[in-house]
Amino acid sequence: MKKIYLDYNASTPISPEVFAAMEPYFMNQFGNPSSSHWASSEAKEAIYKARSQVARLIGCDSDEVIFTSGGSESNNQALKGLYEALRSKGNHVITSKIEHPAIISPCEYLESIGAKVSYVDVDQYGKVNPAQIEKEITESTILITVMHANNEVGTIQPIKDIGNIAKKHGIVFHTDAAQSMGKIPVNVNELGVDLLSIAGHKLYAPKGIGALYIRKGTPITSFIHGAGHEDGRRAGTENTPYIVGLGKACELAEKKLATQNKLAALRNYFWEQLKVIYGDSIVLNTELDDCLPNTLSVSFVGVEGEKILEKVPELAASTGSACHSGNVELSSVLKAMGVSEHVGKGAIRFSIGRYTTKEELEDALSLLKSRIVLS
Amino acid sequence: MKKIYLDYNASTPISPEVFAAMEPYFMNQFGNPSSSHWASSEAKEAIYKARSQVARLIGCDSDEVIFTSGGSESNNQALKGLYEALRSKGNHVITSKIEHPAIISPCEYLESIGAKVSYVDVDQYGKVNPAQIEKEITESTILITVMHANNEVGTIQPIKDIGNIAKKHGIVFHTDAAQSMGKIPVNVNELGVDLLSIAGHKLYAPKGIGALYIRKGTPITSFIHGAGHEDGRRAGTENTPYIVGLGKACELAEKKLATQNKLAALRNYFWEQLKVIYGDSIVLNTELDDCLPNTLSVSFVGVEGEKILEKVPELAASTGSACHSGNVELSSVLKAMGVSEHVGKGAIRFSIGRYTTKEELEDALSLLKSRIVLS
Repeated sequence: MKKIYLDYNASTPISPEVFAAMEPYFMNQFGNPSSSHWASSEAKEAIYKARSQVARLIGCDSDEVIFTSGGSESNNQALKGLYEALRSKGNHVITSKIEHPAIISPCEYLESIGAKVSYVDVDQYGKVNPAQIEKEITESTILITVMHANNEVGTIQPIKDIGNIAKKHGIVFHTDAAQSMGKIPVNVNELGVDLLSIAGHKLYAPKGIGALYIRKGTPITSFIHGAGHEDGRRAGTENTPYIVGLGKACELAEKKLATQNKLAALRNYFWEQLKVIYGDSIVLNTELDDCLPNTLSVSFVGVEGEKILEKVPELAASTGSACHSGNVELSSVLKAMGVSEHVGKGAIRFSIGRYTTKEELEDALSLLKSRIVLS
Repeated sequence: MKKIYLDYNASTPISPEVFAAMEPYFMNQFGNPSSSHWASSEAKEAIYKARSQVARLIGCDSDEVIFTSGGSESNNQALKGLYEALRSKGNHVITSKIEHPAIISPCEYLESIGAKVSYVDVDQYGKVNPAQIEKEITESTILITVMHANNEVGTIQPIKDIGNIAKKHGIVFHTDAAQSMGKIPVNVNELGVDLLSIAGHKLYAPKGIGALYIRKGTPITSFIHGAGHEDGRRAGTENTPYIVGLGKACELAEKKLATQNKLAALRNYFWEQLKVIYGDSIVLNTELDDCLPNTLSVSFVGVEGEKILEKVPELAASTGSACHSGNVELSSVLKAMGVSEHVGKGAIRFSIGRYTTKEELEDALSLLKSRIVLS
């Protein structure tokens, strides 16, 4: 069975360059970076370098970056840490209906401890309307959190516009950039965000590492309490190899940003060919020109997406997002977009990446064409 | 410069067997374990196996183990998660004065949100008296947390006795086993604990991975909210390689437990030779027969520990614990033991491990003898 990986939004492989950068820190430079002897000095320097690599990609200072165990932890600290720090000023949080579970679930947790959360609607393409965010702002609003790009359908959100609104009203603004990092430019000042979450494993670094950008002066409490790591902002012995890996991945991402047009062209080619095969039986769930360059969310009208993938097990792709697997209901993202059940149940997300070739896509098309015949 | 690593309590190297077990999951089996296609199936199985390896070492069921990003996160979830779950029943927590910062700091956090925390004293050897724990119990006590073995001086705590007391009073009992795992037997039923924290990097697995044992039925909330990973108890895409590594490390630890006597003999030899060199100018900070087999905490009387290590930079050892580096004050552990400043300021922790040889210890003794001359 020739396997074809079209699920880069679920997870990317670790790039060979990233692995090579990490390797010395597993068994050789293994010292605790917080120690004061020879066994820790190289690890300490490596972490210093990695922090600057992450900072460079997003355009901030090194001391505005803390390392976490991944996107979920970053989101948890951003939301809970900000809420705790500003609870005395207000309890209102604004977010959208198409956020990742790692935002929705912390929001629900905050509601359980007294927060009021507004979940704004999106349009048919999964896009948040900044004016609607502004309409929700009250005296007690302390945080706005909207993802940079959606994991399921790829829609890029108007973060800059929301950032301007947040700034105008003096409200802290967080964005979950797990899916956008490395695919489109992410600059914290251009976007106007105060907090930004990064997930290593969407960026050719490992699962289990992430980062949180914290703009200087943003009030936020520690999430994991303990010894004084990360300037007292996140306790836990530093995961040197993975931190080094994330740094390297960010360095590479900067270089690779220029190649994203090529990725979009491949993605567009795939879509055009699907359209040739399936005609009106296949529809786009989003607008390709306002979407992550690697993401293609389509619906096979009237057919179950899961059934399609079962017939073509060579293809690794998602019917929802990986985090929702096992769930046969229409995803909350498609629901929020107003997609009908008839169309939405056939939704498949194809997401390509750095190692995807045109040959793989041709193979995928052949497999689909031969096994999935729609009337 | 011949380097000698005598700081295994700060961090262990990753064992070659652990690295070999992890390696396939970096670049080859990289799929998101929560996906439903070929790219995730091997990762899923590997995590299943790793969970059973951890469970076997501590004598519990697989579904009582969740993976975390390390000992600090495990401790945070144990304390905050239990407190949140039982807050309506009471707000009192009992712990000791010699806990790791990853326990003390979450306790202080809980105090900031309304908890009452009792920090019980220890004796001159750093040992908690179970009777004193019992004396502190009130109607509102919801949690007792006492570490299994101390990181700085190695003292093994009477966990079984405390466990009996906790059981008698129907109070949840947590132990931080970061330092004891792999060095002495750790069985959750023999110890009578409901929650137990594990840190990979003290156990020849990587930094950035840990586990939390949660006895069936123990009320505890999620700490990182998000998608439904770890049965809804800890969100975040699974760090497959490190989880596999922790599993392998636990499997190896079980086999290596029998060799801990040899380690104790090496440690004792090192102590005897130090005594020959320094006579009354060096004292033990703990009792060797009630201490982790690899740990030797001594004090060079009247001399600063840091100054000694500065003169013998080849030796990687700690004056306090790695997490307290930069701190010139007597460590809180030594203070709690009632060690005088005159003695305690000369405290050095030598901690040996799986790869320590007698030759290394001979070299260390020669270096000390030639450079540190005490009157």
